[in-house]
Amino acid sequence: MTDPKLDRLKTLVGEVDDLRKASTILFWDQRVMMPPGGAQARAEASATVGRLAHEKFVAPEIGELLDGLNEADYDYDSFEASLIRVTRRDYEKAMRVPPELTGEMRRSSALALSAWGPAKQNSDFQSLLPHLERNLDLRHRYVECFPKPDETYDVLLDDYEPLMKTAEVREIFDELKRELVPLIQEIGDAGEVDSSFLRGEFDREQQREFALKVVRRFGYTDDEWRLDQTAHPFMTSPGEGDIRLTTNFRPNDLSSIFASMHEFGHGVYEWGVDSSLHRTPLGSGVSLAVHESQSRSWENLVGRSRAFWRFFYPQLQQTFPAQLGSVDDEAFYRAVNKVHPSLIRIDADEVTYNLHIILRFELEQELIDSRLEPRDLPQAWNERMDEYLGIDVPDDARGVLQDMHWAGGSLGYFPTYSLGNVISVQIWERLQEDLGDIDEQMERGEFGEIREWLRTHLYVLGRKFTPQETIERVTGSRIDPGPYVRYLREKLAPQPA
Amino acid sequence: MTDPKLDRLKTLVGEVDDLRKASTILFWDQRVMMPPGGAQARAEASATVGRLAHEKFVAPEIGELLDGLNEADYDYDSFEASLIRVTRRDYEKAMRVPPELTGEMRRSSALALSAWGPAKQNSDFQSLLPHLERNLDLRHRYVECFPKPDETYDVLLDDYEPLMKTAEVREIFDELKRELVPLIQEIGDAGEVDSSFLRGEFDREQQREFALKVVRRFGYTDDEWRLDQTAHPFMTSPGEGDIRLTTNFRPNDLSSIFASMHEFGHGVYEWGVDSSLHRTPLGSGVSLAVHESQSRSWENLVGRSRAFWRFFYPQLQQTFPAQLGSVDDEAFYRAVNKVHPSLIRIDADEVTYNLHIILRFELEQELIDSRLEPRDLPQAWNERMDEYLGIDVPDDARGVLQDMHWAGGSLGYFPTYSLGNVISVQIWERLQEDLGDIDEQMERGEFGEIREWLRTHLYVLGRKFTPQETIERVTGSRIDPGPYVRYLREKLAPQPA
Repeated sequence: MTDPKLDRLKTLVGEVDDLRKASTILFWDQRVMMPPGGAQARAEASATVGRLAHEKFVAPEIGELLDGLNEADYDYDSFEASLIRVTRRDYEKAMRVPPELTGEMRRSSALALSAWGPAKQNSDFQSLLPHLERNLDLRHRYVECFPKPDETYDVLLDDYEPLMKTAEVREIFDELKRELVPLIQEIGDAGEVDSSFLRGEFDREQQREFALKVVRRFGYTDDEWRLDQTAHPFMTSPGEGDIRLTTNFRPNDLSSIFASMHEFGHGVYEWGVDSSLHRTPLGSGVSLAVHESQSRSWENLVGRSRAFWRFFYPQLQQTFPAQLGSVDDEAFYRAVNKVHPSLIRIDADEVTYNLHIILRFELEQELIDSRLEPRDLPQAWNERMDEYLGIDVPDDARGVLQDMHWAGGSLGYFPTYSLGNVISVQIWERLQEDLGDIDEQMERGEFGEIREWLRTHLYVLGRKFTPQETIERVTGSRIDPGPYVRYLREKLAPQPA
Repeated sequence: MTDPKLDRLKTLVGEVDDLRKASTILFWDQRVMMPPGGAQARAEASATVGRLAHEKFVAPEIGELLDGLNEADYDYDSFEASLIRVTRRDYEKAMRVPPELTGEMRRSSALALSAWGPAKQNSDFQSLLPHLERNLDLRHRYVECFPKPDETYDVLLDDYEPLMKTAEVREIFDELKRELVPLIQEIGDAGEVDSSFLRGEFDREQQREFALKVVRRFGYTDDEWRLDQTAHPFMTSPGEGDIRLTTNFRPNDLSSIFASMHEFGHGVYEWGVDSSLHRTPLGSGVSLAVHESQSRSWENLVGRSRAFWRFFYPQLQQTFPAQLGSVDDEAFYRAVNKVHPSLIRIDADEVTYNLHIILRFELEQELIDSRLEPRDLPQAWNERMDEYLGIDVPDDARGVLQDMHWAGGSLGYFPTYSLGNVISVQIWERLQEDLGDIDEQMERGEFGEIREWLRTHLYVLGRKFTPQETIERVTGSRIDPGPYVRYLREKLAPQPA
């Protein structure tokens, strides 16, 4: 028998979920479909729908229902216990922040994002500075809504990686830094890999067709997926059985093929969430880091593997014979895995990428702890780029202004990218233990068994458990950078001749 | 100075409008973009957003504000008086219908629409019959929510053509019938027009490009408009400066070019509504008939005119030289204006179209007055098709099952199509009086003056006045079929040799 209180809770969170899906469509449409003239009306509609979703969720009735429900009445693993547990945690967080502050944070980040575009364009940090100061100020007020944490940064991090502590991240990142800085040095010393053939003219429509060929092999179907062109790629799912990937097909390189696999990884995670969890707070991926682990798995562990390209490279050559006809598969494999310190995070290779993240993670902590003033960010940024990557930053556009996250007010977000890298290999090792030699499957263009393993072990769980619990259920251990570092070294370190 | 009650009313109806815009996007996306797998989640999200918009609108606070506001405090023509007047009318209508009944009507029409597809496919009226009976039953209950009307049908009609009476429509339609039945006879006696070249292979992408060329000349810009492919064409506007046309580009005829102009007419009406009216109940076209007058103006009065094709036909020939290279412009003009009784309303010509409507209008009244049982619809339909158009109906798929309106529960909708035809010519005559010889402009491919006349005289008004008031403001007279009948006769009756 079911508790009528639980049924009522399901009804109410179902309505909140419907409103969030409406927000999702408003957002996707704005980025992908909306004519620019619709911007003002869309801003108002989005604000109203977002505010109503929040109001409906923090309604007193939900609080009263939660007071009358006890997750201990059910198996820890059950849908019921998970629903009560996760809704309670979300509810308690949401109740702590006054709607006025939420509103101010939203407004401030909207204004700052509008200023970020031109600031980056003109490499004009000063014009963004007041916005960053305002964002930071509001984040300080936000932190004060919560019980005193071990470290201020914990509160920010928790919004993106629930229940993760700054100290844990620091420990992981310190190990990464210790291992990766010398690895980059070794690779640099071994000499340059030729990747010149990856730059050139590549017809967008042909890139799109090739990307579709790849993700269809992975599990994309026209029944439940879309792939569209956009300026800043993202994945979103406005409902069960409705997975939307976006990619920026660029005319002068092949990066969008990897970006498509990346977004597929996000999409297939949402796609695989158990049906019974939909229209509840349990019905999506558990955290940004775990999400990123899946985008990285499909982009890097699959999409930058030799086995993958054994199958796909002949097709790619056929698609672009003028550009790739004289490039052999090993040269291509080495080029798409080239490690080389560079300025821009989103274009970085598998190894140096993490140092871009660590730099941001450190600066974010210093900012929120008031050890670093926003006005001193460019200098701190440039010094650390030199220290970690040996890179001279020529201007702020290619330095501290390159990402939109801080303008958007997202402090605490960046670490999830590298945590995702770390987790991806932990999960992959377990998958390999279970499935044996998956290279053979990939060389035959078969990815169904990989996808199904990930689905049944990870994706189905949705948000039933905490991120840490989820990772432990799948891998048997806590987050551990060891496997990731070994993977990078084995794949990318100079091999003895 | 402004009344704070009025400001508050504006805020509240603004939120309702935001939710309706969200509904609009959910709908557009479902029809145009959504992968089919998203259907279930979308149904839930749409239901919730639609219900919340209704709940927010019938909130007691809006009633209290309206009680405290008096439109007579402001000029009749002012924004303020119109807002109070129109909101009051909408509110009083919305309050009369119990939410349970609204919910039942929605569910019933959703079920009936699902049954309609297969019923039409299999020409199986019996499978749709229980749904039609249920819909009709619910409409009887709906009618009872309102004060006793002169005729039962008045209540249904009012939802689509506010404040219009059945008796007025009947008078107009009786005149149309009296004039058009013999006109069709005359045209038939004069012999067949060759339109065989309009059937053939026409590349969809080329059709789309040509349609875009046309609507761009009319005023479509990439900044504020979209044109997409869909199964059942429609226009929608999910916000100011965001006008979305859809067309079904069919591979075997050119009808989508006219359909595109038709949807442009709907779009340019919404596009031209005065900015100050947006985010209020005044911010859209005033009624379905007046809306249809604009789609018909751009489709027929512009798009099927000799002057229009003087400019565009050479381009169309160039686009389809194999199909049209040997067809001269006069032959083409006659073909796209061919009058010929046929089975399907949406494919009907300018003259016979109205008889398809009159037939439906008559049957709808008989149904709601219980003079006709739903089970007897097919027979009544077929008899009247023979009487008005001399057409034998071979099966119900091409007869009573062809339209989705009755399955969707929309009784009272059909007359607005022919009323739109009538109004379109009344407005056009005034436009011609003001602008002089517009044929010369159209022959040069210039439509800006026409569009601006319509905008400043009609589109800007939005819903500020009643449909009847709006028509009188623009044309100086009430709805009158005289000009329309004259137009049809002059354009399409056999000319003395």
